[in-house]
Amino acid sequence: MKIGLLGHGVVGSGVRKIIDDQKTIEVQELVVKRILVKDDWEMTDERMTQNADDILNDPEIDIVAECMGGLEPAHTFVRKALEQGKHVVTSNKKMLATYCRELFAIANEHGVTVHYEAACGGGIPWMAALDRIRRVDDIMNFRGIFNGTTNYILERMYHEGKDFSEMLGEAQKLGYAERDPSDDIDGFDVKYKVMLSAVKANDVLLNLDDITTFGIRHILKKDLDYCRDNGYVCKLIGRGVRQEDSVSACVMPMFLKLDDMFASTPLNFNVIECEGATLGKAAFTGQGAGSLPTAHAVVQNIIDIWKNQDSEINPKLPAAVDNRDLMGVYYIRTKKSALFADITDRYVGEDTILTEKISLSEAALRIKNVDDPDLFIAEVAE
Amino acid sequence: MKIGLLGHGVVGSGVRKIIDDQKTIEVQELVVKRILVKDDWEMTDERMTQNADDILNDPEIDIVAECMGGLEPAHTFVRKALEQGKHVVTSNKKMLATYCRELFAIANEHGVTVHYEAACGGGIPWMAALDRIRRVDDIMNFRGIFNGTTNYILERMYHEGKDFSEMLGEAQKLGYAERDPSDDIDGFDVKYKVMLSAVKANDVLLNLDDITTFGIRHILKKDLDYCRDNGYVCKLIGRGVRQEDSVSACVMPMFLKLDDMFASTPLNFNVIECEGATLGKAAFTGQGAGSLPTAHAVVQNIIDIWKNQDSEINPKLPAAVDNRDLMGVYYIRTKKSALFADITDRYVGEDTILTEKISLSEAALRIKNVDDPDLFIAEVAE
Repeated sequence: MKIGLLGHGVVGSGVRKIIDDQKTIEVQELVVKRILVKDDWEMTDERMTQNADDILNDPEIDIVAECMGGLEPAHTFVRKALEQGKHVVTSNKKMLATYCRELFAIANEHGVTVHYEAACGGGIPWMAALDRIRRVDDIMNFRGIFNGTTNYILERMYHEGKDFSEMLGEAQKLGYAERDPSDDIDGFDVKYKVMLSAVKANDVLLNLDDITTFGIRHILKKDLDYCRDNGYVCKLIGRGVRQEDSVSACVMPMFLKLDDMFASTPLNFNVIECEGATLGKAAFTGQGAGSLPTAHAVVQNIIDIWKNQDSEINPKLPAAVDNRDLMGVYYIRTKKSALFADITDRYVGEDTILTEKISLSEAALRIKNVDDPDLFIAEVAE
Repeated sequence: MKIGLLGHGVVGSGVRKIIDDQKTIEVQELVVKRILVKDDWEMTDERMTQNADDILNDPEIDIVAECMGGLEPAHTFVRKALEQGKHVVTSNKKMLATYCRELFAIANEHGVTVHYEAACGGGIPWMAALDRIRRVDDIMNFRGIFNGTTNYILERMYHEGKDFSEMLGEAQKLGYAERDPSDDIDGFDVKYKVMLSAVKANDVLLNLDDITTFGIRHILKKDLDYCRDNGYVCKLIGRGVRQEDSVSACVMPMFLKLDDMFASTPLNFNVIECEGATLGKAAFTGQGAGSLPTAHAVVQNIIDIWKNQDSEINPKLPAAVDNRDLMGVYYIRTKKSALFADITDRYVGEDTILTEKISLSEAALRIKNVDDPDLFIAEVAE
């Protein structure tokens, strides 16, 4: 199998290294033929090129592995690769979650496949586990700590009593968080992963904009003080729950009890749990990012293609997000707390309420109408 | 694919139910043709038979699923099935760990395979995960809470300050523990699973008798008091560590720190962790027992055979167990503690020492020579 690699950064260089090292008999079947790089200084190997067409138009290349990140030109290159009848493996959750309707249709038309284990859960074999479980079971629900950067920030704020901005700065210094941290701290990164998980778990294509998403940008030290004083930890959780004809889907901070299995997830790890009809609950923990763990997932997908082990036999159809049945108690801190008076169970701090048990759709609608840019909301585990 | 089912107890009846229910298109390819039962009252279905030859000699049956438990006649039936050119799926860890050298050789000779996902980790897709990870990585080490019964006993002793014998009695009353609880509480059940994990993880066939095994039969309330007072929890852990030409392998109670991911494993769950060269650490949590989760694993293996997805391409060769490089600090409680004087770091209770950091092979040898039937040993996490 001849592979064309788009991108030679953190993930791409890991893929190149694993395949070049030829450590197992499966990997010995793979060859990286060409590598697309951006800058002159990256042209360190005769396989490097700065022209994507050298890969996309090469009839010898069977599989294109896209590890560039960003929407464009990644999206255009992937579309062209599929149109040329090449299988695609991508680690790019943002691009895939944004364009998967179009890309899955093109792949289908050209008899090839799109694989994305590395795009959701990094090194965790989460997508592969879903594929396997689905052979026997429907997936009733899933939830996960899908983002290491926010887990790092929340853990350190919790244990060291630090401020959000200080911890974000440190995460950026360590290279965990991007210079524009919005995708991480506003929950968009987790939203992409919830959308892709629902594709595998429930065969549905959700509208990204319909997934209720609250991040941790406005979390304060005192919110974590409340957690600590009341036997909770705070985690940013992405969730999906299969309903009759729709899917409940959301991303939001949750105050979890200390004996929740998710409570002790280490700093830079991800954990994802799902529930199958006969399997019951199963959980998967691993490194959600990093060069080699993510590259490992890309190489696994390449081997899946080589072995023709694509079990995505069910069509993926658009489905509505419906959070009317997702009931919860919410911790809401806002200067406009008086506007929540009719759903307030009690005040737990200045401007801070615990709601009665209400649906997430109602909570989200109320928050939209209140229009307080500094509002912080978290669901409180019962 | 036509399946013959040996046994219709907890696991076997679950397999029958999942296949009869025909919920997914993969399962719709499977048919349970005959079911071996023991007693007259079990003959509730025209597929039932009390004569194993009706299954073993039926040329239409492609796969024999053995869910009987026990060494005999399960072992003889499995051997005969393989000799008849039938693939075998088994949930019987004791039988397989005891006879796998013989059975793998017979399977190989007749061009068929033996699958055993349900024998190790029940519903957890642990064997499948190892198969997948091994396509890219060597496995450097694994460790797991492989036994729900002992986890149940230890958790309740720890949180409720109960005695061992009381909790064992309760586990037996709930059907978690057998009337003869030795396999669980003496660590043999975990030993079988460590042996089978090493087959998948390292392609080695270890001698069961060589795996250092200490159970929890002699644990006292005061041992758990020590844990609680010093920030530990106690778990029965099975482990394997790949060495140059051998494997370190053991089963023993461990005092783990509270922030260890294993510390918050719920009552009846199993958790298993492994480390791959490029994947890094990954962990898998799920129900280690129970009718449907274990049956789910059997059905998954049947689908593996149908899809011809057997990735066990490496030969399994005998290898020595060598625990000389497995260093640890040990908590040892024995009336003969004076005999450990030269390796004692300090006393932490009456007759109870913490050792200096020594090898497990030395600790095991000393304990054997001391010959105190009531001795309790646990490794203390650093």
